[in-house]
Amino acid sequence: MKPAAATDLPDVADIYCAQARIRHLVHATPVLNDPLLDEALGCKVYCKCENFQRTGAFKFRGACNAIACLQEQELAGEVATHSSGNHGAALALAARLAGRTAHVVMPENSSPMKIDAVKSYGGQVHFCSPTNEARAAELQKLVAEGMIPVHPYDDPRIIAGQGTAALELEQAVPTLEQVVTPLGGGGLVSGTAIATESWGVSVFAVEPEGAADTVASLKRGEVISEFSPDTIADGLRAIVGMRNFQVIRDRVTGVLTVSDDEMRLAMVLFWQKMKILIEPSSATVIAALQKYPETFAGHKVGVVISGGNIHPAEWLRLTGKLSD
Amino acid sequence: MKPAAATDLPDVADIYCAQARIRHLVHATPVLNDPLLDEALGCKVYCKCENFQRTGAFKFRGACNAIACLQEQELAGEVATHSSGNHGAALALAARLAGRTAHVVMPENSSPMKIDAVKSYGGQVHFCSPTNEARAAELQKLVAEGMIPVHPYDDPRIIAGQGTAALELEQAVPTLEQVVTPLGGGGLVSGTAIATESWGVSVFAVEPEGAADTVASLKRGEVISEFSPDTIADGLRAIVGMRNFQVIRDRVTGVLTVSDDEMRLAMVLFWQKMKILIEPSSATVIAALQKYPETFAGHKVGVVISGGNIHPAEWLRLTGKLSD
Repeated sequence: MKPAAATDLPDVADIYCAQARIRHLVHATPVLNDPLLDEALGCKVYCKCENFQRTGAFKFRGACNAIACLQEQELAGEVATHSSGNHGAALALAARLAGRTAHVVMPENSSPMKIDAVKSYGGQVHFCSPTNEARAAELQKLVAEGMIPVHPYDDPRIIAGQGTAALELEQAVPTLEQVVTPLGGGGLVSGTAIATESWGVSVFAVEPEGAADTVASLKRGEVISEFSPDTIADGLRAIVGMRNFQVIRDRVTGVLTVSDDEMRLAMVLFWQKMKILIEPSSATVIAALQKYPETFAGHKVGVVISGGNIHPAEWLRLTGKLSD
Repeated sequence: MKPAAATDLPDVADIYCAQARIRHLVHATPVLNDPLLDEALGCKVYCKCENFQRTGAFKFRGACNAIACLQEQELAGEVATHSSGNHGAALALAARLAGRTAHVVMPENSSPMKIDAVKSYGGQVHFCSPTNEARAAELQKLVAEGMIPVHPYDDPRIIAGQGTAALELEQAVPTLEQVVTPLGGGGLVSGTAIATESWGVSVFAVEPEGAADTVASLKRGEVISEFSPDTIADGLRAIVGMRNFQVIRDRVTGVLTVSDDEMRLAMVLFWQKMKILIEPSSATVIAALQKYPETFAGHKVGVVISGGNIHPAEWLRLTGKLSD
């Protein structure tokens, strides 16, 4: 039996409300472009640099909106989530700014830098085995203790918050024709698709070949449940959420895939042309512009550079000799 | 005998003219700030990110203005300069955009990345021995062949161009109280001091302890001629120019110094808080905010992040265990 369609999807008004709610907390990140990057990619590229967002990723937008909604509803208490990376750090800081504590369930093999980030923003880390079951069980335990769960992407407040990046992009470059975002759980692309609905741009999402669960889900007509990701894009390994899938299916023009090696090349290109280090997850969108010229060549394309939380040593390890 | 005071210094009107001349060529770079960086430095810090300028450094502003002035004067021909780094790359691109060729005299021990940059922007590289004499002789040879020299900093057109970054900073954050820039040859700080004269901010310059020729020159009352720099800040090893010295002496509130180790720590701090890799030269300003709280604490400070042309491997080598 297919699950019923979600009836609590945000609409564009919810995204404007989110923007009003969080604008004093989030950075209005810069939109950068460069003629030499354009030349390399064959289109005009406007990079919405969420890698310079607080906590180093767009995730802070959704987290702030979720916490602000709790404040408005006068729901006191600690919050809990699971995350191997940027959402955990984002929720930790968003919670701390509201005088709350965030508890983050993290797989015990999470990167030390991401663990440190959660702690440095005041979050409480709860380690679990690196399986979906262990993670769900640990989160369930925290919720049973009275904590308020905040899902990383399959949550209307999170989707609305992530959509605010696209609103800012529209405000900065109203003449864009296409917007491209990375796709993991789908929070960013679903928020983007909703935010841009009246703008007349086509929205594309990019997932790693080794975590192409959304492409598989679209093919099957429902979200697949069995899935073993294998990709360097550690931010995009999650299975697409139910709400997110619904939005992608109904409102996104295309879901594209890129290989890990294409991401590595895009990381190097972005550093060479823009002097910015990006995570593999962010590199998906740059890689897609190179790989699918029939879709993007000659157009004005906005891309969301989703995050920059990568240690330079890790960046070098991933790009190896490519960057010499 | 002291040289006569330069009579061709630009004034603030020249900087506005430069802005009008180059605005279609240069990036209006973002001004970034972050509460966690503020917290770490004890003041409100607004970073004018010239590391995201075309060619990766503010030098492109002055180079574009110099070339545009030649165009206006209908002076045809190839241009020549000496530079071990960012000015050479900047002049190469600025010249190419105007359909000219730039010839860049570089010491044969220049970093391969900086040599490649000059070439990639269409510049012709002429190697020389790494001495002031060899460099001057090689440049003189090119000028004798009919090329037009464009000095990296002791040139009114260059000073006016570099001053445009401060105009943009003023336009972005009119309430600043202080502006801080790195100091090598003095092009950036002299342009900044002239640009900001009617703005009511105090201007500070920072030089490496191992290249504190300006501090020594101010003490002596004239530009010193004997000087052996020893610092990781490869962009700040030049001796201050005559025009630049005159502006610094008359209009800059203070010249501060920082050590190489203080720069290394600032590079790491800037990466941790801002997710941006900066050259040691750029790190001087961040290091100074930490080192001189009696000057900056509690103020609204604009800093010019002058360049980001550093390979991640070199960044790691310089910061070593500090970034773990």
